[in-house]
Amino acid sequence: MSEKRIVETALRVRYAETDAMGIVYHANYIVWFEVGRGEYMRQMGGNYAEWEAQGIFLPVAEVWARFPAPTRYGDVVKVRTWVEEVRSRGVTFDYEVAKDDQILTTGWTKHVCVDAEGRVRTLPPRLREMLGGEG
Amino acid sequence: MSEKRIVETALRVRYAETDAMGIVYHANYIVWFEVGRGEYMRQMGGNYAEWEAQGIFLPVAEVWARFPAPTRYGDVVKVRTWVEEVRSRGVTFDYEVAKDDQILTTGWTKHVCVDAEGRVRTLPPRLREMLGGEG
Amino acid sequence: MSEKRIVETALRVRYAETDAMGIVYHANYIVWFEVGRGEYMRQMGGNYAEWEAQGIFLPVAEVWARFPAPTRYGDVVKVRTWVEEVRSRGVTFDYEVAKDDQILTTGWTKHVCVDAEGRVRTLPPRLREMLGGEG
Amino acid sequence: MSEKRIVETALRVRYAETDAMGIVYHANYIVWFEVGRGEYMRQMGGNYAEWEAQGIFLPVAEVWARFPAPTRYGDVVKVRTWVEEVRSRGVTFDYEVAKDDQILTTGWTKHVCVDAEGRVRTLPPRLREMLGGEG
Repeated sequence: MSEKRIVETALRVRYAETDAMGIVYHANYIVWFEVGRGEYMRQMGGNYAEWEAQGIFLPVAEVWARFPAPTRYGDVVKVRTWVEEVRSRGVTFDYEVAKDDQILTTGWTKHVCVDAEGRVRTLPPRLREMLGGEG
Repeated sequence: MSEKRIVETALRVRYAETDAMGIVYHANYIVWFEVGRGEYMRQMGGNYAEWEAQGIFLPVAEVWARFPAPTRYGDVVKVRTWVEEVRSRGVTFDYEVAKDDQILTTGWTKHVCVDAEGRVRTLPPRLREMLGGEG
Repeated sequence: MSEKRIVETALRVRYAETDAMGIVYHANYIVWFEVGRGEYMRQMGGNYAEWEAQGIFLPVAEVWARFPAPTRYGDVVKVRTWVEEVRSRGVTFDYEVAKDDQILTTGWTKHVCVDAEGRVRTLPPRLREMLGGEG
Repeated sequence: MSEKRIVETALRVRYAETDAMGIVYHANYIVWFEVGRGEYMRQMGGNYAEWEAQGIFLPVAEVWARFPAPTRYGDVVKVRTWVEEVRSRGVTFDYEVAKDDQILTTGWTKHVCVDAEGRVRTLPPRLREMLGGEG
């Protein structure tokens, strides 16, 4: 039985990420998910750039997010990332973005493993293991 | 019984919207949803900028999208937008992004109506009507 | 003696392009320059995507822009693009972004021609000609 | 005679910031300048968000940048920011973006001080002092 490993990444809100409502534009939280995911892989000993150099890609196939509270320029937020599920040909990441103790966003992304030609393939065992699945 | 009104908006993919995989970065489809939504309101006789000037905002409360096929720099895509549901305090938009006859993305966004202080309120009758709900 | 060919591209301001000041975030004008440049090449019979497929790239080596007036969500702006100078290994584009008769931005980008390995090379004659230089 | 104070900010390149050339899209360096500028003000004891809350804005009036070398997903870059000149109604920031010892970008932004209505005004003495000018 494995425990869920959560990786936390701190970000400071950029002015570029705000919109005319004075708050962070919603699509930027989806970018922050990507930042959290990259940090997750780095802390698990992986490096997404290196996987890509070997012809292994994990594009986003599906995304969902809810935005219960807004955030503003200069705020420091934390992205918590963990792996919800590893499948033979993909992985699902879960995210929580929070400011202090307030949840700003929750969401998930589903990824499918493809090669450089875009063909679906099984996750390499080492990648699968790194993501917390059986190697 | 009302028919679904679908508004189509054509976009050409910007280089800025691509990523190192050579395809459009997924979060940009969420931005395209916003472009489709703005055009929908414009064609229904509304103007989101004017609603905001009157203190009526429709921030995105929730988003979902699936990305079955990629697209590239210079491609012309069409965003089809329609209203899935009008509620007393919000609205759900549906989207399809397609290139020629190929579906690239499907998704929806749920919006809640708030005032300038961020308080939830009922949709003004004229806005509700414009979105296809009972006035 | 050749005349300056100016290509005009219309854009509608996206909410994603605004910032907490309620106006378009400055770096987005640089993206609009890219949109104008792509349209320029398309109207001159070229297609930047095809050049890239042949291993010819024109990355931005230098950029300058001035922002005399702001613009807002939903506004329609026009990007006017022309070639200021064609050199053996590069090209300079000039831009004006205007709303009605008001100039919002002026700027230029300098590009250098490189191959897929990033090595500087001379512009292929057909590309040079398309950009208005001697073939 | 005052010494130049340089503030360094580390950033990790996001996938969203790359483009189809496999490198960081040029306009994102302009966004990084903003990140460096915000950090500069924070370290000098200021907080741009607070100035805005008091109706003091420093929009970008002009920008220039040169991009001698590219950078890629996952790279850690450093943005060095300093004040080049403080004027009665504005300020010029200089930037260098570097990876290890390699300069990736140099540039500057000129800012003009405006109030909430967009009227040009003199820098408040405390802001002027914080930026390194005579108070």
